Amino acid sequence: MDIKVITGGICAPKGYKAAGMHAGIRYSSEKKDLMMITSETTADAAGVYTTNKVKGAPITVTKENIADGKASLVICNSGNANTCAPNGEEIAWQICELAAAATGKKAEDVIVASTGVIGEPMAIEPFEKNIPALAEALDADGSDDAAAAIMTTDTVKKEIAIEFEIGGKTCRIGCIAKGSGMIHPNMATMLCFITSDVAISAEMLREVLKEDVKDSFNQMTVDGDTSTNDMCMVMANGMAGNEKIEGEGEDLEAFKEALAYVTRYTAMKLASDGEGAGKLIVCDLKGAPDKDTARKVSRSVVSSSLLKAAIFGEDANWGRVLCAIGYTDADFSADKVDVVMRSDKGSVTVCLDSRYAPHSEEEAALILSADEIYIDVDLKDGEASATAWGCDLTYDYVKINGDYRS
Amino acid sequence: MDIKVITGGICAPKGYKAAGMHAGIRYSSEKKDLMMITSETTADAAGVYTTNKVKGAPITVTKENIADGKASLVICNSGNANTCAPNGEEIAWQICELAAAATGKKAEDVIVASTGVIGEPMAIEPFEKNIPALAEALDADGSDDAAAAIMTTDTVKKEIAIEFEIGGKTCRIGCIAKGSGMIHPNMATMLCFITSDVAISAEMLREVLKEDVKDSFNQMTVDGDTSTNDMCMVMANGMAGNEKIEGEGEDLEAFKEALAYVTRYTAMKLASDGEGAGKLIVCDLKGAPDKDTARKVSRSVVSSSLLKAAIFGEDANWGRVLCAIGYTDADFSADKVDVVMRSDKGSVTVCLDSRYAPHSEEEAALILSADEIYIDVDLKDGEASATAWGCDLTYDYVKINGDYRS
Repeated sequence: MDIKVITGGICAPKGYKAAGMHAGIRYSSEKKDLMMITSETTADAAGVYTTNKVKGAPITVTKENIADGKASLVICNSGNANTCAPNGEEIAWQICELAAAATGKKAEDVIVASTGVIGEPMAIEPFEKNIPALAEALDADGSDDAAAAIMTTDTVKKEIAIEFEIGGKTCRIGCIAKGSGMIHPNMATMLCFITSDVAISAEMLREVLKEDVKDSFNQMTVDGDTSTNDMCMVMANGMAGNEKIEGEGEDLEAFKEALAYVTRYTAMKLASDGEGAGKLIVCDLKGAPDKDTARKVSRSVVSSSLLKAAIFGEDANWGRVLCAIGYTDADFSADKVDVVMRSDKGSVTVCLDSRYAPHSEEEAALILSADEIYIDVDLKDGEASATAWGCDLTYDYVKINGDYRS
Repeated sequence: MDIKVITGGICAPKGYKAAGMHAGIRYSSEKKDLMMITSETTADAAGVYTTNKVKGAPITVTKENIADGKASLVICNSGNANTCAPNGEEIAWQICELAAAATGKKAEDVIVASTGVIGEPMAIEPFEKNIPALAEALDADGSDDAAAAIMTTDTVKKEIAIEFEIGGKTCRIGCIAKGSGMIHPNMATMLCFITSDVAISAEMLREVLKEDVKDSFNQMTVDGDTSTNDMCMVMANGMAGNEKIEGEGEDLEAFKEALAYVTRYTAMKLASDGEGAGKLIVCDLKGAPDKDTARKVSRSVVSSSLLKAAIFGEDANWGRVLCAIGYTDADFSADKVDVVMRSDKGSVTVCLDSRYAPHSEEEAALILSADEIYIDVDLKDGEASATAWGCDLTYDYVKINGDYRS
C-alpha cells in the first residue's frame, strides 16, 4: 500500500480542528498546558488505557464517555495528572461540561485527559477561565499548538500525518503524542490522540487498536514504570467518504497497515525522546517460538538498565544482552542466540550461538557512537519476530527525575 | 532467641578457614580476585541459584557437585564470570581439581563460583599458578581477605557472624557476600557464602534456605537486572555438636531464625551498597491479602526507577509510590493505601486512603536527607506483611555501568 507522509498533524484528516494555549494550570512560565481537538461530526471512537490499578480520574470519565463508541472532542491538560487528588472525577466531569458548553458539543462525547504530577489537587478555575478562549482559537492549523500543550518533560513534539487510499477514496490519519519518562508496557505515561477521516465502526476500531498497541506502544519502554494516566485514543469521523468498514476485508487491512505506520513511528519517536535519552535503542528480534515470546524478549533487551547504561557508555557489552534475554519469563531456548549490533556507522556480530564472536572493540565502539542503535537478535528457536524501542540510561534521566517537581 | 553478633565472618563457626589473594585473573592492580574457604570436615550443603536461562558455567558444575548434599571447599574468582565463554565448564571443572589437589579435599565436594564480565574467555593459568599459594594461606583469620576477593564494583565488604544456642550448644553462622549492580529477584549478581557449625541434614538445609531467600535476597533490588551467575551457598559442618536437625521442631526454628538474621542483614547491606547508591530504601509493607502479594508490592516500590530518582533528589514524590504499587501484577485493592516516609530525622504521613495527606514539603525533604529511607505502606486489605530493600538511582549508577569494562 502507498502511504504518504503529509503535514497538518491531527488536523490533516477532514473535519478536525485543534488549539493549544497557556492556561496557568501549573507552570508559571508561558508553556502551553491546555489543548482541545474537535471533529466537525461525531466520530466513532476507541481507546486503550493504562493497566495500573491506580488510575487517573480522567481515565474513568473518558471510559464512561466513549462506552457508546462515540466522541467529538478531546480536551487535555499538562502539569497536573488529576490522580489520587480530592474530587478528581468531579473536576474531570466539570472540564467536559466546560468544553461542551464552549463548542456546542455534548459533554458525554468528550475525551478528557491529564498528565503531570500525581496527588496534587487540581483547581477548576484555570479551565473555567480559559476554555472559552481555547474553543475560540480552534483552527485547522492548530495541531502544532495542541502537540506543544500536552508536553511535560518531552523535548520534541510528536506529530505525524499520513495519506493513503481505501476503496479509491483518499483517507488520512493524524496523530499527536506525549510521553517521555515512565513509558513502559503497558501504556505508561503517554498520551496519544489519533484522528482519522476513515469511515469505520467503533467496534472494528476497538479491535484494531487493541491489537495494534501490542506491537507499537506496548513494545516501547523508557524506565519500566507504568503510569496512572496513559491513554491512546482514536477518533474516526468518516468524512473521507469510504464505504464504512464494519468487518474483515481489504479495507480493514489497509486501515490496519496505515494505523500501524502511525503508531510505530510515534512509538519510536517517544522512545528516542525518553527522559534524558541520548540514543534510541531498537531491538529487532527474530527466531522466537511465538509472537508473545518475541515481544517479551525484545522488550526485556531494551528494558535492561545495565544494557541501557552500557549503550550510553558506547560499550558493546553484549553479555548484558544475553543476560536480559535469559531472564525473560517465557519459554524458549537461550542456547543458540546470535546478536548483531548496528547503526548507520556499520554493523558487527558480537555473539554467535550464545558465545563470544570475535570482533573488534574499536569497531563496535564506533558503531555505538551513533544516535540510533539497532540490536538484532536471532533466537534460532522458531519463526516469530517483534520489535521493541527504548533508549539509553543517562545522567540526565537521573537529573530530570530527581528534580521533576522543583 | 538470643543472637549475638561476633567477629570472624565465615571463619567464626568451628572448623572453617579462608584466604583471598590477587591472582591476576583480570585486574592489573593488586585487587584480590581469588578466594577459598574450607571446612575441616565434610559439611552438609545447599544452594539457591539464578533463575536466568543464561547461566554461568560454575553454576552447572556446583549444582552437580552438591547434588549429594555434601561440600568441603568454596573457590571463587572475581573479574570474569566464566559465562557464555568457550570451554567454560571444562575450566570450572579444572578449577575444582586444582583446589582439591592443593588441599587434599575431593574435587566433587567443591563449590565453584565466578563473577565479573560475561562472555570473555577465562584462562586457567592464573588458577594453576596461584591456587597452591592460596591453599597455603588458608587461615582462621582469613574471612576479610576472602570477602575482599569476591568484590567487583562493591565499595564495602559484606561480612557478618553471629552466635546463638541450639539445644544448649553454642552455634555460629558466618557469611560473606558480594553484589552491587544487577541485584534483583531472583538472586541477581550476588554471591553469598554462608558457613555454620550447626549439625543439620542437607535436606533440611535445602528447605530452610529455599524459604529464607524469599524474604531476604529475593526482596532486594538494585536495577532490576537478574544476573547469570548468582548463588547463595550454605555449608553446615556439625562441629557445634548439637543433636543433628533432621526434621521440624524447636531446633529447626532456632536455626531458621538465626539464618534469617544473617540473610536479612546481608540483603540490607547489599542494597545499601547498590552501584552508585547514596541511600538505602526500605519498604515495610503491611495489610496485604497474602504473603506473596506483600512481597511483590514492596519489591515494586523499591524497584521503581522514578521513585529511586525522586529519593536521590530528596523529593517526597509519593505519587510515584502509589503508581508503583498500582502496577504490581497481583490481586489487591489500591484504593485505601496509607504511605508514611520516615528516617532517623522524623516521619511524615504523605498519603491516606490513596489520597494526598496534607504535610509539609520542607519537613518531608528533611526526612529524606537521611541515608536510610523507610517507606511504610499499609494496603489495609489483609494481614500479610513483607520488607523489601533497594537504593536510590544516582548519576554514579549510570557512570559505573556506562563504563564497567573500561
